[in-house]
Amino acid sequence: MSTVKPPADLEADSRVKAVFDDIRATRRSDFINNMWLYLAFDPALLESTWREVKAVMAAPSELDPLVKEMLYIAVSVTNGCGYCVHSHTAAAKAKGMTAGQHAELLSIIALAGKTNQLATALQVPVDSAFDADRG
Amino acid sequence: MSTVKPPADLEADSRVKAVFDDIRATRRSDFINNMWLYLAFDPALLESTWREVKAVMAAPSELDPLVKEMLYIAVSVTNGCGYCVHSHTAAAKAKGMTAGQHAELLSIIALAGKTNQLATALQVPVDSAFDADRG
Amino acid sequence: MSTVKPPADLEADSRVKAVFDDIRATRRSDFINNMWLYLAFDPALLESTWREVKAVMAAPSELDPLVKEMLYIAVSVTNGCGYCVHSHTAAAKAKGMTAGQHAELLSIIALAGKTNQLATALQVPVDSAFDADRG
Amino acid sequence: MSTVKPPADLEADSRVKAVFDDIRATRRSDFINNMWLYLAFDPALLESTWREVKAVMAAPSELDPLVKEMLYIAVSVTNGCGYCVHSHTAAAKAKGMTAGQHAELLSIIALAGKTNQLATALQVPVDSAFDADRG
Amino acid sequence: MSTVKPPADLEADSRVKAVFDDIRATRRSDFINNMWLYLAFDPALLESTWREVKAVMAAPSELDPLVKEMLYIAVSVTNGCGYCVHSHTAAAKAKGMTAGQHAELLSIIALAGKTNQLATALQVPVDSAFDADRG
Amino acid sequence: MSTVKPPADLEADSRVKAVFDDIRATRRSDFINNMWLYLAFDPALLESTWREVKAVMAAPSELDPLVKEMLYIAVSVTNGCGYCVHSHTAAAKAKGMTAGQHAELLSIIALAGKTNQLATALQVPVDSAFDADRG
Repeated sequence: MSTVKPPADLEADSRVKAVFDDIRATRRSDFINNMWLYLAFDPALLESTWREVKAVMAAPSELDPLVKEMLYIAVSVTNGCGYCVHSHTAAAKAKGMTAGQHAELLSIIALAGKTNQLATALQVPVDSAFDADRG
Repeated sequence: MSTVKPPADLEADSRVKAVFDDIRATRRSDFINNMWLYLAFDPALLESTWREVKAVMAAPSELDPLVKEMLYIAVSVTNGCGYCVHSHTAAAKAKGMTAGQHAELLSIIALAGKTNQLATALQVPVDSAFDADRG
Repeated sequence: MSTVKPPADLEADSRVKAVFDDIRATRRSDFINNMWLYLAFDPALLESTWREVKAVMAAPSELDPLVKEMLYIAVSVTNGCGYCVHSHTAAAKAKGMTAGQHAELLSIIALAGKTNQLATALQVPVDSAFDADRG
Repeated sequence: MSTVKPPADLEADSRVKAVFDDIRATRRSDFINNMWLYLAFDPALLESTWREVKAVMAAPSELDPLVKEMLYIAVSVTNGCGYCVHSHTAAAKAKGMTAGQHAELLSIIALAGKTNQLATALQVPVDSAFDADRG
Repeated sequence: MSTVKPPADLEADSRVKAVFDDIRATRRSDFINNMWLYLAFDPALLESTWREVKAVMAAPSELDPLVKEMLYIAVSVTNGCGYCVHSHTAAAKAKGMTAGQHAELLSIIALAGKTNQLATALQVPVDSAFDADRG
Repeated sequence: MSTVKPPADLEADSRVKAVFDDIRATRRSDFINNMWLYLAFDPALLESTWREVKAVMAAPSELDPLVKEMLYIAVSVTNGCGYCVHSHTAAAKAKGMTAGQHAELLSIIALAGKTNQLATALQVPVDSAFDADRG
């Protein structure tokens, strides 16, 4: 079930086809996951979303590609986005995440969820030592 | 402003003192940030929280200590925990996070926040290829 | 799957029947969606919830009915409520939301999700110019 | 700082005055906390909000008044609403919450925050035994 | 669908078996719900999670066992964790939660969700009377 | 307090100056709010963020500019982003939002927050009539 219906012949639209071709080339795989099929209901939104995902996630960067997927998982879990948790966990495994790293990732995400609750419940005042903007 | 008041003479309680001593030894620093001062309103909660933070964040692990702080930041930002964002950003900088890495981290957190919204708004069905439990 | 079971003969309860009749009359449709069927496990909760939904969403107001549905979608997406995203997207389409408006709506929701993350990650201080309560 | 400015002479408006009088009578206290002062920018919103708070929180009920405040705290912490965490923690203390109960409450809220993250990260399938609607 | 696959013969691992035996003994039931089956992909994470759940939820405490389940539900609903809402609602019913108490619980959770939104939208300043840390 | 420190002489950086000039021209105002000052710690992140905000919020579109600000407020409130609630409420007022419209907006946001909680607590199954992807 979804809130939009992807067009029957997606790649008949040249803008959609161009994005899908770039996804396949960038990932070196023929598989296009559902996120992109459904975003294709609006070619402009598909284009801008893919452009940003490619720039942030697929371009050379200081952070390691696997670390980037793990960060994506951390946000997606916290936002409760089931689709995103699935797609980025699969991506992290494809980039080499071991079962041990997965378990560590979950331990950190779970601990942060816990101490976030404690700090909010206590309304702990921010230490002035943490202010980057002082002085 | 906070919802509890730390005791006037925190380290008069031997359980509190033991935790604070361990924090100082583990971090090689005399600074105890407010989170621990306020958690000290209940020594048992202070002990169990610190024990878990130490086990997950300070013990040897597969993930790099800086990566672990970045994951903590990602969850804390998404949960909107201001205190935690401050404390873990300070910790990440202390562990060597550069301004460039900080900006990359923010780009990923922001992009994930955005695509989480899109996937939820579209109610994208999960691809069967993502199911780890099949077969 | 759900956490309560609607009674077998819902409209045997006169309070449930009165609410369902009012839903049908207000919406000029025989269709009662699952939200109301399941809320009927507690007639008082059904009554108070419908009364408020009717007062806020169906009464004459300054805001356009379609705008109101879009606002409902924005909150529901951000809260990750799949049921609500589905029901209010269907309602918005029934009130005339075009595919182009849907895509614009998603662009705004996604952008807000993104910049919310950035502002929280930076812990940007609120400009005094924004304070409605000053002076 | 706030996004609206309460009128200078709040109780000059008879609808506002009536709500404030009822708050004082219900709570047996002259203190009106800021939530109500700021909601008074729109008397109709003030009236409907107070009516519901009074019906749910102040009327006789199966759940104990202190338990109800604790539930309110649990939601408010999870939503990250600092104002609400403060006001309902103060209310819970006024209704007798001890420091020990406060610590237990925080332990449960924190644990739930943690296991919510784990279940979402694992995308654990719901056991059919939990479905109230089957059969 | 899930992001990990539980091992085929779970209880062949002595650490997993020990946790499962303790779950069965603590709950006086042979039923092990999916949360634990999937957590078993990492025995150490299974052990530490169960140890904490047992300590917080199953040990003698000031708060009533049913109240504790209700608090768990409140957090889980607010975090949008469907699995957790299901498992803890079933647990609350097993501990005696009546339909009337369930409806009251939902009324409070819903009201808190509503007034959290109002307080955040208004950015209501915290009353100094609520500060536990003053003076 | 913030997690980064804006450079002392922001507009000495030609990329920052170009963005700030465009903000001033687009908004026809000399006022640059803090969000942009702090984002300037990384000129590339400042550029990409402003480019997207301008494209989504300031370009001609089907949705009314005031409606777009209200949608932004709805997301920001639900995410608990205080800075964003302040800045977009100020923007909505600058675009003509009346006190009456503000109160209606809050009523819808609050109601959605409430019924989101109810639907999640009940785990209401999605009606097949809502599926845009069927048939």
